[in-house]
Order: sequence, then structure tokens, then C-alpha cells
Amino acid sequence: MTHTTASTTAFAPITRAACIGGGVIGGGWIARFLLAGIDVKVFDPHPDAQRIVGEVLANAERAYGLLTSVPLPPRGRLTFCATLEEAVRDAEWVQESVPERLDLKQRVLGEIDATCPAQALIGSSTSGLLPSELQTTLTHPERLFVAHPYNPVYLLPLVEIVGGRATAPATIARAKAVLDAIGMKGVVIAREIEAFVGDRLLEALWREALWLIKDDICDVETLDDVIRYSFGLRWAQMGLFQTYRIAGGEAGMRHFLAQFGPCLQWPWTKLTDVVDLDDALVEKIGAQSDEQAAGLSIRELERIRDENLVGILQALKTGHGDRGWGAGKLLGDFEARLAAQVAPAPALDITAPLELVETRVSPAWVDYNGHMTEHRYLQVFGDTTDALLRLIGVDIAYVQAGHSYYTVETHLRHLDEGKLGEELRSTCQIIAVDDKRLHVFYRLFAGPERREIATAEQMMLHVDTKAGRASPSPEPVMARLRPIALAHARLEPPAGAGGIPARRKETAAA
Amino acid sequence: MTHTTASTTAFAPITRAACIGGGVIGGGWIARFLLAGIDVKVFDPHPDAQRIVGEVLANAERAYGLLTSVPLPPRGRLTFCATLEEAVRDAEWVQESVPERLDLKQRVLGEIDATCPAQALIGSSTSGLLPSELQTTLTHPERLFVAHPYNPVYLLPLVEIVGGRATAPATIARAKAVLDAIGMKGVVIAREIEAFVGDRLLEALWREALWLIKDDICDVETLDDVIRYSFGLRWAQMGLFQTYRIAGGEAGMRHFLAQFGPCLQWPWTKLTDVVDLDDALVEKIGAQSDEQAAGLSIRELERIRDENLVGILQALKTGHGDRGWGAGKLLGDFEARLAAQVAPAPALDITAPLELVETRVSPAWVDYNGHMTEHRYLQVFGDTTDALLRLIGVDIAYVQAGHSYYTVETHLRHLDEGKLGEELRSTCQIIAVDDKRLHVFYRLFAGPERREIATAEQMMLHVDTKAGRASPSPEPVMARLRPIALAHARLEPPAGAGGIPARRKETAAA
Repeated sequence: MTHTTASTTAFAPITRAACIGGGVIGGGWIARFLLAGIDVKVFDPHPDAQRIVGEVLANAERAYGLLTSVPLPPRGRLTFCATLEEAVRDAEWVQESVPERLDLKQRVLGEIDATCPAQALIGSSTSGLLPSELQTTLTHPERLFVAHPYNPVYLLPLVEIVGGRATAPATIARAKAVLDAIGMKGVVIAREIEAFVGDRLLEALWREALWLIKDDICDVETLDDVIRYSFGLRWAQMGLFQTYRIAGGEAGMRHFLAQFGPCLQWPWTKLTDVVDLDDALVEKIGAQSDEQAAGLSIRELERIRDENLVGILQALKTGHGDRGWGAGKLLGDFEARLAAQVAPAPALDITAPLELVETRVSPAWVDYNGHMTEHRYLQVFGDTTDALLRLIGVDIAYVQAGHSYYTVETHLRHLDEGKLGEELRSTCQIIAVDDKRLHVFYRLFAGPERREIATAEQMMLHVDTKAGRASPSPEPVMARLRPIALAHARLEPPAGAGGIPARRKETAAA
Repeated sequence: MTHTTASTTAFAPITRAACIGGGVIGGGWIARFLLAGIDVKVFDPHPDAQRIVGEVLANAERAYGLLTSVPLPPRGRLTFCATLEEAVRDAEWVQESVPERLDLKQRVLGEIDATCPAQALIGSSTSGLLPSELQTTLTHPERLFVAHPYNPVYLLPLVEIVGGRATAPATIARAKAVLDAIGMKGVVIAREIEAFVGDRLLEALWREALWLIKDDICDVETLDDVIRYSFGLRWAQMGLFQTYRIAGGEAGMRHFLAQFGPCLQWPWTKLTDVVDLDDALVEKIGAQSDEQAAGLSIRELERIRDENLVGILQALKTGHGDRGWGAGKLLGDFEARLAAQVAPAPALDITAPLELVETRVSPAWVDYNGHMTEHRYLQVFGDTTDALLRLIGVDIAYVQAGHSYYTVETHLRHLDEGKLGEELRSTCQIIAVDDKRLHVFYRLFAGPERREIATAEQMMLHVDTKAGRASPSPEPVMARLRPIALAHARLEPPAGAGGIPARRKETAAA
């Protein structure tokens, strides 16, 4: 079972969004919305818009397939529209991602405001322009705000929410609640300034980096290595101040500032001057960057980046004793909500083995030869057990109340192999139950052709986790188990079962 | 099996180091050296030095226990010395980590130079002083360089290597080779400037961050969230330039610079002015930082940080299709070298079940209730199989040449539970072998009391991986297997075995 944590965040799910502009950022927004089950209408007159959006969406779907095994909601509907008006007409949230020019954005936002529903929210993806200046052409400026995301938008959760002079506080609260509902981290910036917070920090570092390259202190690969082998690893989980708080030791933040403060007066940066990014410097950086990429194409680098981000997010999800930390906790909470929203098996056919888990072979599951590691098969079967237990009412609340099923014995058979990225599906057939035991048989299928690649037979015991001993399953659980066990007793015994002998008291349906 | 990659890096292992100064940074160096099997002599007149070093070392050992299951070399010997001379007398590498004052460092480095062996390397941990200025008091300045690490030194691999005017090129090359041998990433900075590369970048960002707090644009928690939910996740794996190369899309780096360049002229940062870190600002940041910490102590934050870093490093180790990426590739290469250095079982007693794996229950292995997840038991048994296969010559080269053993059947029994942080040990008893089959029984023990918590019986088949079918094990493999199988045939059959029936041709020793 995976973790969950009560959250006090407000959620405001929406079902219809419009995206005006479908470049890399607009495409990222489109993917976020669609994969959260939201219908998206797009307007972008650029001739390549459909292709670019399609590519971003393909990357996003690939990444989500690896990121989570929680069933996502059915993907929203994607519609490309011929006019802006058609795209925004029935939207609850309109996201503007057109090029970074004030006059253009003002005109487009004015058109959006004039044609979208009165209660719709209007977010701008601008990375630097002031929301107060973007509001000037709107009849309803109170609903406009900056919603500044980071690339790749479908994986990085941050959105800086910045209001202008005319933005209503309720708009900010609603915007945050909509973003929270789709698994993003809406962070409210208290006062508007050009470039907000993230790009201010990035700009400061970027200027310094350009000087270091121009002055031949190091090349771009060395500079990147300095980041990713040191503070980059820190910043994936804690930011600047929390990291320095630790560095200050037991005396804490004030002590650290006292020590570090004087360094600010040292002549350590070129901060009083702006580098001239002339042709020679552009060419120098371009050439060094080509060398650093070592022949990897942008597509390959994107895939590597996304897989690494997935791995980092998953690592942070199990951080802090599986409670999750930072972006990983956000992901865990999002998954828990999605799992809770899964309809309680309305269409579950109990006259056949239960279809319980759909997932995909993640890059973290394969070894250097592309083979799926042995224990990952058991991980999928463990997820199957979790799904079965949830189905019979043994959920997180049940476990926290002091009872659970523990596995005492497992018999695994390997028949074939799962390959990187392949779809996996597991089924569960109940062999027998009694008041304490649950004896099941799982099959694992790979690919669209449903190749059987492994089976697991498991004996579980209902336990009182505080007393640390077996205890009878309560009637509400048995009442859910019994009809499934009775229906499965009419099925053929699974081929390959018998690895675990039946126990004395066990019957097909107790 | 875990991955390995041929590397062209030079390695120069050392066996004796001296650390002058044992604060948080000195302590981190001490831990790095000791855990890499290097004896360390320490001189630090501070009354709390032994306590601080002990605490850093405890953190480091805890982190390494979670980080890797590759057997580390025997820990080096730690000696606290009464004088500097005693500490450096027989050192191959002397690392200076005294407070950041030029006159103090010059004096200490002069003393080191006067008393350590003529061929010893002398590294300074300074985070900003020029090596040329540190060299002035030395008789042999050619062997002095800056070796600037990042906190926590035992987990973050980066060391900036910076030579001064008098530093010999051979010194830089040797320093890099020594660092590479202990799993660190020595990055050579081409030209010395104050604060080198990493701290220049950090300083630039830090100044900007202080302005944002002072001007109430956001509080410290918001600023940290902006970092760790966005570019912090990117920078753990790729740096600034590689990330922007991707952002530039197929047109690449030059295109990106052309787009982004003009922004440098925007009035986006406070770069022309230095914030006054007065009492009011220190107090403001201190109070916000207290609130952000939400009651977590520095020790707790350290543990969370270290566990997250371990998780991120492990995620990057399996990145890029298990080839590893960035700091994760470095870790994988280091582990592969350590594994290769493991003596071929000199003391292996084959008259008893083989002691093959020692590891620890990692935070990523437990669920929210502190229970070790089912598939992690199989992961440890999988590592046991890898260790057994290496022992009989089925190593990475063997597998790459087209043959391997595949598991066809596994029978797991759960007898008790592993708890977070507990030591785990596995043993292997060979039940039977024939020319194609390998039938084994593993036990898993937890804690110093060796509580038996699980067993696994496995049937493996020798396969021709290209042909995709079973094939006889070659004589060199059988020659290693046979004596163990013969010896184990004299042992009692393991209690709990029999979950997998013996096959027709199988015998105790083919």
C-alpha cells in the first residue's frame, strides 16, 4: 500500500479548459489538463501547432506511464479550434501562452476576456511581464493573474501565481485550488515584480554563468557538472534557506547568516555589469554545448531528462519514511486522491479472474540488458494484492485501525519477460478463503497481445497488527469476499496453481 | 545485477590521509576517507572536535548503509592527534579545513608543507580564497591546490579542483585521480578566481534571494518551494546549459541564446546593489526559517536531507536505461569498482550455507507503517543470487557474452519482519545442481540477533540469452559450483525447503 496524508488544501476540479498558444509551454499545459481528465480546446494559428502539441503530449503520456501506476482519469478531449472565440467560449480556465511581447499579450488577453464565460479564470504563462500591465485591456481584470509554469510543464509541478493591482483575492484562491486539483503546486507570490521569483533567481545565476564562460574560468560542461554534482542534488528536495539552515548547524539560521553575511561584501561576482551576449560568445557556448551533448539529440535528452525527473519524483515520494517530501509528497497526495476517486469497481465482473492492475514496465525496473528485474514482478503482484484488499474494504483506514492481511507464503513462476515500456495487466483468481486465510492466484500479462509472463500464488493471513497474531476477518470483509470466492469456485482451477498446499480449514467459500 | 560501464578515468588510491580541522566540512572529508578504507589522522585543537567528527561520521555511516549494498572496504582507522605534525607526518593527502581567514590558512598550510612527506598532496577546502595566495608560505607550493567540497561532503560528490600560479599540472592530475578513486567527482576549474565556480553561482542567486525576502516579494518558504518544485528538480540531473539546450528545442543552444539573450537587458534583478544584511533582515529571515522548519530539528532535517539525497542518487543510478546518469552514474561506477575489488571469497566457508549479502532496511523499503514492503525481500534475495552467480563466474562479462542463469520459480516464506534501518544478512544453501539447473535455498536474517525473517527457494536455469533457450552450463562454471554443491550435500536439508519439487535429472552434485 502506498501512503496518504490528510491535506488541508482546497481543491476545485474543472472539466473544461482553453489554451491559447500551443508551443512547448502551451503544449505542456495542454498535456497537464488532458491527463488530469480535463477537456481542452486549443487555438494557435501557427502551422506547426498540432505537431508540436502532439509531440509534447506523447512525451507527457510516456512520462506519466512511468511515473504512476494509479489509474489516471480518462484522458480529456483535445480539440483544435479555428478561432480564439471558439476555443474559450465554454472554458472554466483559459491559459494564455503566446510569445513574450506586452502588446501581443494585451491584445490576446483582451479578446479572451471579451469572449469567454463571465466566471472563467484567465491565467497568463508570462515569465516576466507584470500582471497589472496585462490587465489594462480587460473589462474584467479581477479574474486575470499570472500562472507561470516551468518546462517540462507536465512533470515540474511549480506554478507561480501572481496577481496584479486589479486581481481579486478570490481569483488567486480559486486558481490555486484548480492547480492543486490537477497535482500542480500553485505558489502565491505576495507582490508583483518583473520576472517574479523563480526567473529572478535564474537570471542572477545565468548572468554569472555567462561571465564564467566568457572569461574562460570553465566551459559549459564543467559549469553544469558543478551544479548537478553538488547543490543541484540539494535543491531537488530543499531550497536555499532550508539547506542553509542545516548548514548553520544547531545554532540555526541566524548563526549561519552571521557567518555568511560578510561574504556578500567580497568582490565575488560580476554583479555590476551585464555580459554582452555577442556573436562570439553565442558561438563559444553553442560549440561547447554541442560537445557536451556528445551526440545525444534533443529528443534523446528530453527522454533522459523526463526519466530522471520521474525517478527523482518517485524517490522523493518514498522519502521522509514513505510520508513523502516536497514534490514527491505532492505526487503521493495526488495519487492518493486519484485512487480514492476510482469508482468502486462498478463494472467489475466477478465471474472471471478480477482485472486489478494496469501499469507499465518503468525504466527503473529493467537492468542494463533491458530485462525486468525479478523483484519488480513481485512489486506488481503486491500492487495487485493492494487492489484486491481495497476492493474488500481493507484500505488504509482499516490498516490504521489495527488489522490487515499479511502475506505468509508466495510461489512465483516466470514464464516470459516484460520489456521496457510494455503495458502490464494482472488478474486475480481466489482459490480459497476461510475466516483467517486468503489464498489467491495472480497472473501477469504483458503487451497488447496479453502474453502471460508470470504467475504468483499467495497465502495471506488476517492479523491483529497490534497483538501481532492471526485474527478472524470481520463480517464486513467476509461479506465482500464471499461472493467473489463463490463465483471463482465455479472457474477452472488455474493452471500452475498448487505451489502452496491448501490448509485444513480452507474451503472455496467460507 | 547492477550495471557497470568502462571508464577512462585514472584512479590513484591512497591509504593514509590527514585532515587539519574537523568541523562540518573537515568531518565530511574524514567520513569520505574512512568509508573508502583510508586511514585518517586528524588535528583540530577545538574542544568539541571529536564530538562533531563523531556526529558527522554517524550520519555518513547511516547514509552509506542506505546508499549501497556493495560491500565497502574495511573502514579506515581514525586517529586524533595532539599536534599537526603528528597528523601529517606519513600522509599521502593532507586536507586543510580551518576557518576561512587568509592569514590563518597561510600559517597552517606553511606548517603542513614543512612537516608532511615531500610527495604528499595538500588540498585546501577554502570556498573562496585564491590558491596563488595560499601558496605564498610554502617551500613546495607546486603541490598545493584548492579541493573545494560541498556539504554534506560524504554524499555530495563534487570537489572543485583549482590550481594556483605555482601548482604543478601533475598535482592537479593526481588530485583528480585520488578523488575519483574514492567515488568523488573532481572537476578541474581552468582559471583561479575568488569563489571559483559553484560559490560564484550560489552567491549571485543568494544576493537576489535576500532582496526578494527583504522587499517582501515572498517569504523563505515560498522561495524554497519555487526552487524545489521547479528548477531544483532539473538541476539534480542536468545543469544550466544542458537544460537550456533542451529548452531551445531542435534548433539547439544558439537558438535559445538568441531568444533569451535580450532578457539580460531587462531590469530584472537588483544586481547593481548589495543588500544590507542588518539585524532586522537577519531576524526576519530567522523567524521565517523557524516557521518553515515546522518544528523539525536540525538533526531531523539532516536525516531527511540525507535520505532524500540517497533516494535521488539511487534514482539517477538506474537512470538512462540503468546506464546511470550524472551523480548516479558516478555512484554506479564506484560500486562496480568496489564489487570488482571484493576479494574472491578468500575466507568463504563452503561447509556451511554461504554468507553472501549484508545490507540494511532502507527508508525506501518501508511503507507508511514502517513495514518492509514484500517485493524488497525478493530484492535482497535477488542480490543474493547476483552474489552467488559472481562467485561461480557468472559476472557481467559472462552475461554480456550471451549466457546467464534465469529464475524460473521462486517460493517465498515470510516468518517475521524487517524494520527500518535494521541490518540484513542472507545465506545461500545449494540444494541441487545439474548441467542446466541450479536449485537454491536462501534465508534472510535481521538484526544483530539474526532473527530469521524470510526464506526463498529458487530454481534457476542456465540459458543462451541470444537463442532464448536453456543451454548447459560450461565447465568453468560447473567447476566452481561443484565443490560448493558437494559440501552442501552434507548439510541438513533446510527446514522450510520443498516448495519447489526436485527435477528428474537433478542431483546434489552433477
